[in-house]
Amino acid sequence: MGIGQIGGSLGWALRKNGLAGEVVGAGRTIRNLKTALSMGLICSYEPTPEQAVRGSDLVVFATPVSTIPGLIRSLAHAIDHGAVVTDVGSVKGDVVKAASVLRSQEISFIGGHPIAGTERSGASSADPGLFKGKTVILTPASGMTSAMRKVKRMWESLGARVVLMEPLRHDRVMALMSHTPHLLSYAFTDTIARGLARDKDLLQFAGGSFRDFTRIACSSPEMWEGIFIMNWKEIERTIKELMKSLDALAKAISRGDRAVVMRLLGRVRRLTEQVR
Amino acid sequence: MGIGQIGGSLGWALRKNGLAGEVVGAGRTIRNLKTALSMGLICSYEPTPEQAVRGSDLVVFATPVSTIPGLIRSLAHAIDHGAVVTDVGSVKGDVVKAASVLRSQEISFIGGHPIAGTERSGASSADPGLFKGKTVILTPASGMTSAMRKVKRMWESLGARVVLMEPLRHDRVMALMSHTPHLLSYAFTDTIARGLARDKDLLQFAGGSFRDFTRIACSSPEMWEGIFIMNWKEIERTIKELMKSLDALAKAISRGDRAVVMRLLGRVRRLTEQVR
Repeated sequence: MGIGQIGGSLGWALRKNGLAGEVVGAGRTIRNLKTALSMGLICSYEPTPEQAVRGSDLVVFATPVSTIPGLIRSLAHAIDHGAVVTDVGSVKGDVVKAASVLRSQEISFIGGHPIAGTERSGASSADPGLFKGKTVILTPASGMTSAMRKVKRMWESLGARVVLMEPLRHDRVMALMSHTPHLLSYAFTDTIARGLARDKDLLQFAGGSFRDFTRIACSSPEMWEGIFIMNWKEIERTIKELMKSLDALAKAISRGDRAVVMRLLGRVRRLTEQVR
Repeated sequence: MGIGQIGGSLGWALRKNGLAGEVVGAGRTIRNLKTALSMGLICSYEPTPEQAVRGSDLVVFATPVSTIPGLIRSLAHAIDHGAVVTDVGSVKGDVVKAASVLRSQEISFIGGHPIAGTERSGASSADPGLFKGKTVILTPASGMTSAMRKVKRMWESLGARVVLMEPLRHDRVMALMSHTPHLLSYAFTDTIARGLARDKDLLQFAGGSFRDFTRIACSSPEMWEGIFIMNWKEIERTIKELMKSLDALAKAISRGDRAVVMRLLGRVRRLTEQVR
């Protein structure tokens, strides 16, 4: 369900590795589904999500995360009893909550999030090797041992490393490691855009740091508005922490306190040396 | 003067292209100068800056920018009359101001800033091709036509494109395009460091955006404390602009206003598509 970069890469990888009998796609735009079909990411597609999930033993939601809770609720009646449902959304709290509706239908749900993907989007950006060496987070669910085994095995067969994590911890970690940098990148690029309105020549002075800070701002707005809104509580908390770090630096800089600035920057540098 | 990544690359490139009779180095640490000598970045080095500048027809200051105004003032008496002095500092206002002392000594000063360099530092990170295709900003100075021609020709011979810019405009542009992203990267990495103290496993969930946002935080603290302090007025102004962008996004996100968030992100994305 949703044959973008992640869904398309997953379909392609499953087919390439002979891990699925049939991969059936569904999505909003026929043109994208046609691209997916011609690239071999899916075996076929269905005109409605209901038709696509019917008869499937594994359903993967790979649409923008904000749409997943609604899709789960509206499709619960169409999914086969005994089927396993998972997703690839970047926020887990609200998705896992919505999925509780599946339990009464004897459908197992395992929340998932592959930490993979680039700033590109759509079926045409799919890559069957996208998950190799990447981490996939799955949310544990009591009484779903065989469903968990199935989803875990799928990701591991594609070369990913699976880590189990409670939804809340996932959302907190992702706010820090991914969502806040994305928000900052959008905000910084917006500031540049406003600067460009005053000085058209700015871009010729872009160095490496400018490229670092603007790259992810061309990620799909459709995907990111959902992530920002759904995980806002944790992102807001992270921004507050970031402001503490920025304030400490700003205070020392504005005082011209070279020793303190050096100490703060040095401490940060040691961390980056450690982790790179 | 100062055989780090920029100074070392410049010496190496000048020698490689036969553009200088002799390249004499000076710097604080003998070990770095020995590395520079063994790599062929310089022909020789002198134990004091006074000895290094004496008899030179072109003096290049490539030390951390915070040290350049002091060095210019203290070495003015030792530099030959008729010599041309330039620098590679990332802040131009204070440097150009300090250099006015040279005028009375009949020494020409042209402020310079090659927009090149990576997060690495020291002679060992020098690269003779570092300036190829890069932009070098020079600050115009009245009555110094031949000095300007000399410095411009030097950079152009190494494959760089020279742009003239007033010091204040330079500092404003750089605050936006480079200094603020660097400060944010340091602040963000500091937040991560504090997060790590609470949760040691964070780093395994680092994706591309994390790498983008932390790369430049391993830049030399010695170089950056100077830039931050010397250009603080313009950096602070840029941060205020950034906060406006961030606030507009945060307000729409916290209201859950998907249409406005989409519109803001979409506008930013269009800019990045334009410039990449």
